[in-house]
Order: sequence, then C-alpha cells, then structure tokens
Amino acid sequence: MAHQTLIKDFEALLGAENVFSSEADRISYAYDAAVLQPVIPAFVVRPTTKELLGNCVKKLYDNGITMTVRGAGTNLSGGTIPDTSETVVVLTTALTKILEINADDLYAVVEPGVITAHFAAAVAQKNLFYPPDPGSQSVSTIGGNIAENAGGLRGLKYGVTKDYVMGVEFFDATGEIVKSGSRTVKCVTGYNLAGLMIQSEGTLGIFSEAVLKLVPPPKASKALMAVFADVQNAADAVAGIIAAHVVPCTLEFLDNNTIVRVDDFTRAGLPREAGAILLIELDGHPAQVADDAAAVEKVLQANHATAVHVPKDAEEKLKLWEARRLALPVLARCRPTTVLEDATVPRSQIPAMVKAVNDIAAKYKLDVGTFGHAGDGNLHPTFLCDRRDADEFKRVEEAIDEMFDTAIKLKGTLSGEHGIGTAKAKWMEKETSRGTILFSQRLRRALDPKGLLNPTKLVGI
Amino acid sequence: MAHQTLIKDFEALLGAENVFSSEADRISYAYDAAVLQPVIPAFVVRPTTKELLGNCVKKLYDNGITMTVRGAGTNLSGGTIPDTSETVVVLTTALTKILEINADDLYAVVEPGVITAHFAAAVAQKNLFYPPDPGSQSVSTIGGNIAENAGGLRGLKYGVTKDYVMGVEFFDATGEIVKSGSRTVKCVTGYNLAGLMIQSEGTLGIFSEAVLKLVPPPKASKALMAVFADVQNAADAVAGIIAAHVVPCTLEFLDNNTIVRVDDFTRAGLPREAGAILLIELDGHPAQVADDAAAVEKVLQANHATAVHVPKDAEEKLKLWEARRLALPVLARCRPTTVLEDATVPRSQIPAMVKAVNDIAAKYKLDVGTFGHAGDGNLHPTFLCDRRDADEFKRVEEAIDEMFDTAIKLKGTLSGEHGIGTAKAKWMEKETSRGTILFSQRLRRALDPKGLLNPTKLVGI
Repeated sequence: MAHQTLIKDFEALLGAENVFSSEADRISYAYDAAVLQPVIPAFVVRPTTKELLGNCVKKLYDNGITMTVRGAGTNLSGGTIPDTSETVVVLTTALTKILEINADDLYAVVEPGVITAHFAAAVAQKNLFYPPDPGSQSVSTIGGNIAENAGGLRGLKYGVTKDYVMGVEFFDATGEIVKSGSRTVKCVTGYNLAGLMIQSEGTLGIFSEAVLKLVPPPKASKALMAVFADVQNAADAVAGIIAAHVVPCTLEFLDNNTIVRVDDFTRAGLPREAGAILLIELDGHPAQVADDAAAVEKVLQANHATAVHVPKDAEEKLKLWEARRLALPVLARCRPTTVLEDATVPRSQIPAMVKAVNDIAAKYKLDVGTFGHAGDGNLHPTFLCDRRDADEFKRVEEAIDEMFDTAIKLKGTLSGEHGIGTAKAKWMEKETSRGTILFSQRLRRALDPKGLLNPTKLVGI
Repeated sequence: MAHQTLIKDFEALLGAENVFSSEADRISYAYDAAVLQPVIPAFVVRPTTKELLGNCVKKLYDNGITMTVRGAGTNLSGGTIPDTSETVVVLTTALTKILEINADDLYAVVEPGVITAHFAAAVAQKNLFYPPDPGSQSVSTIGGNIAENAGGLRGLKYGVTKDYVMGVEFFDATGEIVKSGSRTVKCVTGYNLAGLMIQSEGTLGIFSEAVLKLVPPPKASKALMAVFADVQNAADAVAGIIAAHVVPCTLEFLDNNTIVRVDDFTRAGLPREAGAILLIELDGHPAQVADDAAAVEKVLQANHATAVHVPKDAEEKLKLWEARRLALPVLARCRPTTVLEDATVPRSQIPAMVKAVNDIAAKYKLDVGTFGHAGDGNLHPTFLCDRRDADEFKRVEEAIDEMFDTAIKLKGTLSGEHGIGTAKAKWMEKETSRGTILFSQRLRRALDPKGLLNPTKLVGI
C-alpha cells in the first residue's frame, strides 16, 4: 500500500490530528538523545486508546511496515531513532491515564505514556512512593522507562525500573495482546514475559499497560555533601560506604570538571577547587538515618574529606540535588557534541574506574566530565567534543572502546542503564558470548517474524 | 543410538559412578513433590563440572533425547517429572561450589546445585544476608529456586528469588553457553535473559552459574504470635497491617485445622481453640522494629486478637517458626494424598480468599488446612485426601477449579510461587490470554528447536 493511502487509512482510524506526515513533523521524530545519525520516518501516528494502539500495530504488521515506538525520545542509545525512511513512528504520548493507584495493595496501573514525574507526584499525593527517578523523569514516559529499564539517582537503595514492574500488557508484533505478571506480589504463572520485556527496547512488543509496585515513603531523610581534594579519595570513600554496610538512597559523584561547569551555570556555591564531591542522601526510619549518617561521616573522614556540608533546610537540599541534575545539561552546553557513557563496574571497583577514565581521557587528549551514580558503580563519563571534527571524534570512539574494555576487565558491564540500541550493539558479544547473541536473535525472530519492531536495534533481526 | 550405547558413552564421559541406569535408581527420579503420575526416565546423569554439564546437554541434543534437569526435586507442579520413558534426567546435585562471596560488592557466584540453606549459612558467616527461604530450603538447590522462582516466608519485605538474581549463565538446548546479567547492580546489556530464565522451569536452558545479590543483615528483629477466635478477623488484620504501611519481614497465617494438627505433632503449646493465628516477624533498625511492633499491635487489637504472644528468647522464637515450617509435613501425614495449592491474591483480598477457601471446602465436603504467606496474599490451602478414592479426588479437582476462578476474579493469580509445570498448564489461558500462550510457544520453539527441554511442561512445545 502506498504511504498516501496508508496515511489516509490511519487518519480515518485515529483522526487527522493524530497522524503527522508533514516534513517538519517527521524531522522532529528523526532523532533521540543519542549522538547518532537521524533518520526521518515515513510518518508518525498517535493512538489515543489502547484499542487504537492495537489496531495500529495490526495494520502496520499486515502491511509489513517497520515500527519504532516512542515515548519522550529521551533514550541515550538510539532506541527511538527510526530504522529506515519507511518506518512509522508509533507515539504512546496520548496514552496518559493513571488507571489505578491502590493504596491498600501498594500497586498502580498505568498506560505507557504517563510521564514518570507526574506519576511519582500522583503516587506521593496518596502518601506512597515510586522510587525510580531517571534523569529525564520530568518528560520521560513509564513505557520508555520499562523498555530501557531506566535507572536513576535512587538505584542504590531502591533498585531500578525493573524492580517495580509487577506486570505488563503489550501488543506483540502481530497485534495480539499478551499479558504477564499480576497485581499480586508473587506470580509465577507462565514465563516471566514481563521480565523479558523490560529493557527490550521496543523490539518485542508495544506496551499498552503496566502494573507498578509502590512502597511506603521513608519517614526521614538526610543529605550530605562531602568535598575531596583528591578524586581518588572520593572514589575510595564510595567503596568504603558500601563496605560499611550502609545503603544510602543516593550516592552521587561529581568530578572537578563537572563541579566547575555546574557552578559557572548555577552559581550554587559549589566547592570549585575540589577534586570531586560526593552527594549523599540517607533515608528511612529517623534513628536509622542518624546511625547511617554517623557511619558515613566516619568513612568520609577516614578518606580525607576536606569538608562535609549538611543542607540547613529543604530549600538548600533541593538546590544541591538540582545542581546534580544539571550536570548533564550544563556539560552539554560546553561543546557541540556530548557523548554520555554509562559503563558500570562492581562498586568496589569505582576507584579503579575513575582512575581509568581520567587516564584514558588524558591519553586521547579529550575533555571529559565525570559524574554519576557512584554507589551503583555506574559512572557517566561525558566526553565533550565536536562530531564534525573527524580526528577528535575518532579519538572519542577509541577512548570509549578502551573504557568498555576496562569496565569488562573489572567484571563490569557496557551499559548500566542507557541500553544497547544501535550505539553499543557491536560491543555486546565481548561482554556476553556468541551463544548469547545467537540465542537472542533466535528469540527475537520467533517473536517478530516479519522483523518489524525496531529491527536494527539491540542484536538486530 | 540405542540407550545401552549412550549409557556407555555417558559412563566414559562422566565416570560410571555418575550415570544411574538400574531400575531402582530410575524409579527414584520418576516423581517430585507434585501429586502427579510418576514417569520412569531412561537413565540419569550427574555431571561434576560445568564443562561436563555442557557436554551432556550437547550429547543429548545431538541424539535428539529429551532432558529433565533436576536439583532436589522439591517442586510442587511436576516440573521435574520426566516427560517420557525416553527422557534422561540431568542432575545438578554435583555442582555444589560456592565460587565467590564478595562482601565489598554484596554478591555471590554459585553453581546450580548449591543447597539453599547451605548457601544462606555461608553468607551469614560473612555477616551478610541472602533472604529467599523457600519451605524446602534445607534440601532445595539454587538452580531449582531460580527455575521455579521460589518464594518463601520472607517474601513480603524481601521479595522472592527473582529479586536476588543479578545474572545467570546457562547452556541452551543446543549446548551453547549463554550469559545474561552482571556482577554490577545495574546492567542493561542485551535482553534481560536472566529475567526470562527465572521461572522457566527447565524449558529454556540448564543453569551452570548464577550471580546472586546479597544484602546487609537486619540489626534487630522481633516475632509476635497473634491469636484470633475468628478466622476472618485474622484475615482482616493481615490487610490492616499492610494498609498501615508496615512491611513485616514475615506475616504468616495458620487456620484452626493446621494449628491443631501441628500441635498434635509438636506439642508446641499452640492455641488449639483459635480460629486462626498470625505469626509475624519484624526486622530492621531496632527503633524501626519497636515502632512497627507498636503499629502492628494496634492493628491486631482493632481486629479483636484475643492474645498476642512475644517469644521470650531466641529458642522460643525458633520453636514458633519451626511450628510454621512443619505445617505442610504435618498436614501431609494425615491422609494418603496432599494437594497443596498456591493461588495468590492482592493482599487486601486475603479476607475474601480465606472465606472462599472455607466455603469451597464445605461445598465439596473436603478436609482442608490453610496456612501460608498471608502478607503476600499467598495462601496454601492444602486438601487432605486419597487419590485412589475417585469420587473424593474428583471433588478436590472441582474445588481447585473453583478456587482458581475465585483467585482470578479477585485479580489474583493461579500460582504465587509453585509454578505451572504440568499441574496447572490447563488454567493458564484463563489468567492471561490466547496471545500470551501463542507468544510463549513461539518463544519456546525458537529457543528449543528440537523440543528437548522438559517439553511437556508450562505451555508445551
């Protein structure tokens, strides 16, 4: 079927206001937050109900057209870049209903297009807590969070999106509805397809609903900022805190480059001379928080922290976390291209990884700002460069290669939370095995027989 | 290849002491803990290293022979009953090495045949904690726990086996090695195959290694036994505790039938007149435990508990939990056949489910003892019967049908922690959808093209 006929068909199905086919519209959906070549899709559809979402998938399947599902497009590995110029982008952004927040049973049921921060706020209003807080939470969608298994600042104590998905409902490539998981805290009925769908990057199905776990909110919390002259001391302190069996809610690291640039932008009064700072949040029962804070301060002193600041009120605390959340956007302003990595290592290896990142950046003469979820072993070395400078960009690529090799040598992983997409597919076999790639490809071909769901992503089709 | 030749081959590969082909041996592996027809396998192999395990799988694959992997055979849904008399049972019980317990990074690496309780004890020796504690932990293996996603008494606060699997390595049906997950707390490299393998019941691959998450142990704990004259009051108290945002480590329910029979056997001094008791354990920071205990006692009083006992020392506490752990074996002694179910509902529906179980048992004139993980919404109604009494067993089957219908109506699930196996396969579509079954079967056929891995289990091949 020619595109024009198909567009008319979709307009009839969804209403003309939910089909985008002008050039300007199509260009808007050609890229995501990854540094990769944009691909302009054929057109874009925005179903407004679950049933219409299913109809869209079925129609695209029947016509043999590739589809890239997209929430807010914040992902960092190219998972929402259309596969080809024939691809249709399926938006979930009109599926924004919170269907249920069950305070007695501590779960919620949502449509995939619900914005993470809106959902967290709705949950908080009922005096409950949805912990996953990816950096993009103010715009990212729950469907995207699940498809990428999004992390966030609270991963250390509370885990990542995966740990809050109790069940999913999705349309498979053929438009059939599949359900897995339950509103119960335990469910072993059939394969753990909900688990499989997490981090499947839009290649196995398109979510129509998710059941998410909620928890009672912590009764108290305390934030600390620890300042270090030496970056390695900060890294050692991270390993020390975990080894002391304290599990902070959040344990974030910012190196000097990041500190200076965030302070330039925010005038937040960050310690510009510091080699690194750690931002720590403890939460839980008030007595637990007090004990943990004492244990943490001891570790910080033992690792030569030059100062430990405790925000004096909620406003000052908010400012501190805002400074952390601004790390990426502020670094991104410095040069035309920002390459944000997320190689992750066991937490005790943070000192080795911090050293390796700095050595590699020096070797390849690159400007790097490193920040991230140190408590999870998950750093974000951010290379500031210009993609148009072929020599510099080649050095960035070589540096990343070397960084991944280091992460794997330290028994870590290519990607803690950003996904594989098209950006990291070539490294996958090195971390896993040939058998893993073959197994994954067989799985995928069986579940998407025509190869229509984001076919160039992950292990390919 | 004729069996005799193949047996010789395996004896050469594994040593004669690791191949079991006598009738007595084969009969020992014909059944598991489910009430289902035994099937005597062709023979049984016990590889002693990971490499030999891989060789076994490859040899069976090449010869087109079906294989049933087996740890301790404690599963309750028939997952370890051989498929046919041609099936070879692959034992993991010689793969018992704990390869690493990493106290700095809070993980362990184990072989699949490690016994759950041995592992938990080794971890405790390093002042760490592995929470999953299935009822069969003293004999069950970690490989079996993962294949069934085993639950246990601590599910309410700490989750189930799934929540502690960071990574797995396994041989697929063809004998290729597949790896998924990592020693890091976050990993999104490729499909979440570790998630898929959990609760896959030996149908997608055979584990060779697992990376398990450990946590710091709680600093304090407190146990309580609450006595209720009326079973519904006990059920209401369960829902009340969760609604009060207290998350006990354990929240167990025993009905009168179970109490009396356990007390007959143990002389533990249980309240034989009680309609039901709740056994509750709170753990965490000492101040948190004290606050939680006060909140729980308030809920218990509001729901007309006639007494609340606190064990006066560790020995008395141990006795209490022993009484709970004896519920199943004691009920099992009463009649020739014990049918233990695990339909699970959202926690607020526990009062409705307890009522339904008793109404159904009365309607079908059956002897039922109900106990279980009430805090998880996961009850174990246990029908005491005699399979040889065709009329009685038909009533049991009808009662179970009705119980599953009720669980699903209450937005629950067929199986909280025991699995589908062959026992519950016929009910799966009712809870999920036709699309779910088709999707699962396509997935399975692609990953096990010759249909050799436990082919009659779960959704079939």
